[in-house]
Amino acid sequence: EAATDAKPADLSGYTRVKQKLVPPPFAPAHEQVATGGPKIVEITMETEERLMVVDEDNGASVWALTYNGSVPGPLIIVHEGDMVELTLRNPTSSMMEHNIDFHASTGALGGGGLTHIYPGEECVLRWKATKPGCFTYHCAPGGDMIPYHVTHGMNGAIMVLPRDGLKDKDGNPLRYDSIAYFGEQDYYLPKDENGDYRTYEAAGDDYADSLEAMRGLIPTHSVFNGAVGALTGEGAIKAKVGETVLMIHNQANRDSRPHLIGGHGNYVWESSFTDAPLQDMETWFVRGGSAVAAMYTFEQPGVYAYVNHNLIEGVMLGATAHVVVEGQWDNALMEQVVAPRSFEA
Amino acid sequence: EAATDAKPADLSGYTRVKQKLVPPPFAPAHEQVATGGPKIVEITMETEERLMVVDEDNGASVWALTYNGSVPGPLIIVHEGDMVELTLRNPTSSMMEHNIDFHASTGALGGGGLTHIYPGEECVLRWKATKPGCFTYHCAPGGDMIPYHVTHGMNGAIMVLPRDGLKDKDGNPLRYDSIAYFGEQDYYLPKDENGDYRTYEAAGDDYADSLEAMRGLIPTHSVFNGAVGALTGEGAIKAKVGETVLMIHNQANRDSRPHLIGGHGNYVWESSFTDAPLQDMETWFVRGGSAVAAMYTFEQPGVYAYVNHNLIEGVMLGATAHVVVEGQWDNALMEQVVAPRSFEA
Amino acid sequence: EAATDAKPADLSGYTRVKQKLVPPPFAPAHEQVATGGPKIVEITMETEERLMVVDEDNGASVWALTYNGSVPGPLIIVHEGDMVELTLRNPTSSMMEHNIDFHASTGALGGGGLTHIYPGEECVLRWKATKPGCFTYHCAPGGDMIPYHVTHGMNGAIMVLPRDGLKDKDGNPLRYDSIAYFGEQDYYLPKDENGDYRTYEAAGDDYADSLEAMRGLIPTHSVFNGAVGALTGEGAIKAKVGETVLMIHNQANRDSRPHLIGGHGNYVWESSFTDAPLQDMETWFVRGGSAVAAMYTFEQPGVYAYVNHNLIEGVMLGATAHVVVEGQWDNALMEQVVAPRSFEA
Ligand SMILES: [Cu+2]
Ligand SMILES: [Cu+2]
Ligand SMILES: [Cu+2]
Ligand SMILES: [Cu+2]
Ligand SMILES: [Cu+2]
Ligand SMILES: [Cu+2]
Ligand SMILES: [Mg+2]
Ligand SMILES: [Mg+2]
Ligand SMILES: [Mg+2]
Ligand SMILES: [Mg+2]
Ligand SMILES: [Mg+2]
Ligand SMILES: [Mg+2]
Ligand SMILES: [Mg+2]
Ligand SMILES: [Mg+2]
Ligand SMILES: [Mg+2]
Repeated sequence: EAATDAKPADLSGYTRVKQKLVPPPFAPAHEQVATGGPKIVEITMETEERLMVVDEDNGASVWALTYNGSVPGPLIIVHEGDMVELTLRNPTSSMMEHNIDFHASTGALGGGGLTHIYPGEECVLRWKATKPGCFTYHCAPGGDMIPYHVTHGMNGAIMVLPRDGLKDKDGNPLRYDSIAYFGEQDYYLPKDENGDYRTYEAAGDDYADSLEAMRGLIPTHSVFNGAVGALTGEGAIKAKVGETVLMIHNQANRDSRPHLIGGHGNYVWESSFTDAPLQDMETWFVRGGSAVAAMYTFEQPGVYAYVNHNLIEGVMLGATAHVVVEGQWDNALMEQVVAPRSFEA
Repeated sequence: EAATDAKPADLSGYTRVKQKLVPPPFAPAHEQVATGGPKIVEITMETEERLMVVDEDNGASVWALTYNGSVPGPLIIVHEGDMVELTLRNPTSSMMEHNIDFHASTGALGGGGLTHIYPGEECVLRWKATKPGCFTYHCAPGGDMIPYHVTHGMNGAIMVLPRDGLKDKDGNPLRYDSIAYFGEQDYYLPKDENGDYRTYEAAGDDYADSLEAMRGLIPTHSVFNGAVGALTGEGAIKAKVGETVLMIHNQANRDSRPHLIGGHGNYVWESSFTDAPLQDMETWFVRGGSAVAAMYTFEQPGVYAYVNHNLIEGVMLGATAHVVVEGQWDNALMEQVVAPRSFEA
Repeated sequence: EAATDAKPADLSGYTRVKQKLVPPPFAPAHEQVATGGPKIVEITMETEERLMVVDEDNGASVWALTYNGSVPGPLIIVHEGDMVELTLRNPTSSMMEHNIDFHASTGALGGGGLTHIYPGEECVLRWKATKPGCFTYHCAPGGDMIPYHVTHGMNGAIMVLPRDGLKDKDGNPLRYDSIAYFGEQDYYLPKDENGDYRTYEAAGDDYADSLEAMRGLIPTHSVFNGAVGALTGEGAIKAKVGETVLMIHNQANRDSRPHLIGGHGNYVWESSFTDAPLQDMETWFVRGGSAVAAMYTFEQPGVYAYVNHNLIEGVMLGATAHVVVEGQWDNALMEQVVAPRSFEA
């Protein structure tokens, strides 16, 4: 698509910086308000095909297709007007071709047309982040391989912040203390005739079975951070009363409806950061193939469950994460006036 | 979660009132614009497990788990800044533990962590309504019991009105003549090997079968007011041309897309009352695990069908209610210029 | 519903014009800003029941129920305040009764109650377009025939433009160079015991089988313009860099989440034209039973894929269209810095 007679890009005025990506649910070091002029943000990602346990209780597993080994891929953060310069590598140990389609970018199928790399190949793609918001990225090799790679974990999110940071509808600045990055992954794991999950020897061996399962549109699992319970227990998010958390939710394929049990979405950006955030939501919406952001300031201590509020998906298919919040209880907000006790019926 | 060393709540400045709850699709007596200062609104709900016929035509039935015996539970109405003080009772005749999670509240899993009551127990929970909007409440005993109770009817809605009432995007007051409260319930009723709906002797006996049916994510029914046809015929909502009806739609689990056949959503609050309403919608959206409000002023007489506009769900799975409107037809809005007649082909 | 004692409509002040409907994905000739006063826009549609190939690769076919022979039915365009005067004809060759429900209209089930025509019948309905936006229309003969006709192709869209045209949130005019009208159709095609698609001798013969397939809520296909690949290859939409395309998406039954691979929704009207458009969306939402509009100005040449971004539906069930854009590549927006090459692992 990129004609060879196209004018070279003028990169004067850009400063080069490297962004060190970190595994989810964490966010890379970044500024909320950009200092200095526009940047070329250099990042590197390597595709990795790896066998992952999806549910320890029943041995469900998947040959995950990943960026940097995690499901979802790492969160990238830049500011509007910056350029992203990605080096993408596919190691020789891979079985498959991969590429990357950035929803935040413009042209060439989101870069997918310029980044097809076979095992042992690398490429470099640079694109300008012209629209502020949270956006999905994902592998899109072509044909049925597109949903196959996406439903095997090969997707993540980039956040393109406005240069002057997030704002409410009246233009007042909104700042957060931390980011919790939730990638929700729908898996369609094949079962054998006894209803047990099948196992496979190598990435891609499940292709025909998986396509058949996918065609029914009903996932066997929908999980955060790649596996049932990955973000509960030791994996739970931590916060304190008074802290503001920006919850970023990526779902590259299937609609979701996040809800923070015991809390709210004080500010929710379902569309982009160009639009004013929705407010005071009980449950927000992720159009399948989107990343969204929701901001909440904790007011009570305790365990909060961040769920896909189709509660069958949240509880039975695995879409539950925990946020453990420390601090002082506020009886003015909620009080157990009478603890459970027997009564005369 | 409620630490014993937390400061007692300061309740001075609140007036205590009792709200008498009524069965759906009706709304309790309430003010649209609050008079006086903040209130502590005392309500009482009793859990009830009861065998309900879902579809008279084929004998489909469910051991419904309910608040106050109805599916959905009763509509509660307060104003922003009020406190809700709920006495919740579980009679000794029950088989199961219940509790309540208010999406409108803050902390302790929406109160779920403070209200676990076994048969023969009661408790009292008080919480402050800090966010205006319509919000789901539901039972959430823990684990798979959460979707099990919710998909057996144990959910309802609270409306938290702004103290000065509803407004359009320019701040002009919006008032309604009546409320129609639609609780849409997705059921996943187990069938036997002949495809007939199974029957069970007591609440909870369908647990294993229901979990298996639920896991497929496709409901056998999606109905208003607990049963197919409950809000048609004698159960239909009544209105008059010129009247404004506030339609509140609660769906505690599954996305829905309400549509009023022959009418519109003039003002629709999908997120909260903090946000300006969307306008002139043909079909609006209920993020699964949400309650929303839509306002319409009827301009023509006749029968209107309020449906989930996945028309398979609306017609075949049961999500249809009727609104019967009296008044004078307006040919300027619509006219049958030529009634059906034969023509020469 | 239309009482015979109702006052006659006052049609003075309206000018009569005829609108020639054209097949999708094209739009009829129209003004973006209305000149002159309100019009009575006369249109004619004929129902047609025809055997259509859905997927050439495997012979899947459907006895489609259509308006004017196409799936979706033709796009109608008027301005707010205009009247639509439809002559609807059902030829004697038909097997079935049809009618039409316009979501944009008011009363009589959207006109459905006044337009029931049997084979060999015609009728004329006039109604006023009082709300600006894109709206679904569809057949709704009653009972299970409603979802049956709608999922057999009998639906389309009308766009009701504001008299002074589209605007951004600040009131600045938004104009387009062309319209691409995407009707997404979910089919539930019955299969035999070998998993092959069944064939039928006449429209309606698939009724019982189709109802059974529909009840499961999972379509076998979801396609644009009636068939897999209808809007790719020779059927692809054409545009040029710098041109603005208004993409209208109609889905009369099932939620969808359109995404333009490589592009965006610069302005998206999910609700109505009364509301300011959402901006800079990666993926937008069609509440099942809605038509929406999204505007994009192309900045790069190449092939764009317009998809339902549930990628299983987009790729495997057929919901992909192509937009082929000519012009000059812009390296400042995206550049392949290093083409795929081998690297030393
Ligand atoms: Cu890949
Ligand atoms: Cu994509
Ligand atoms: Cu319960
Ligand atoms: Cu909940
Ligand atoms: Cu029809
Ligand atoms: Cu409709
Ligand atoms: Mg911008
Ligand atoms: Mg864990
Ligand atoms: Mg986004
Ligand atoms: Mg507030
Ligand atoms: Mg009835
Ligand atoms: Mg709500
Ligand atoms: Mg208007
Ligand atoms: Mg083609
Ligand atoms: Mg619309």
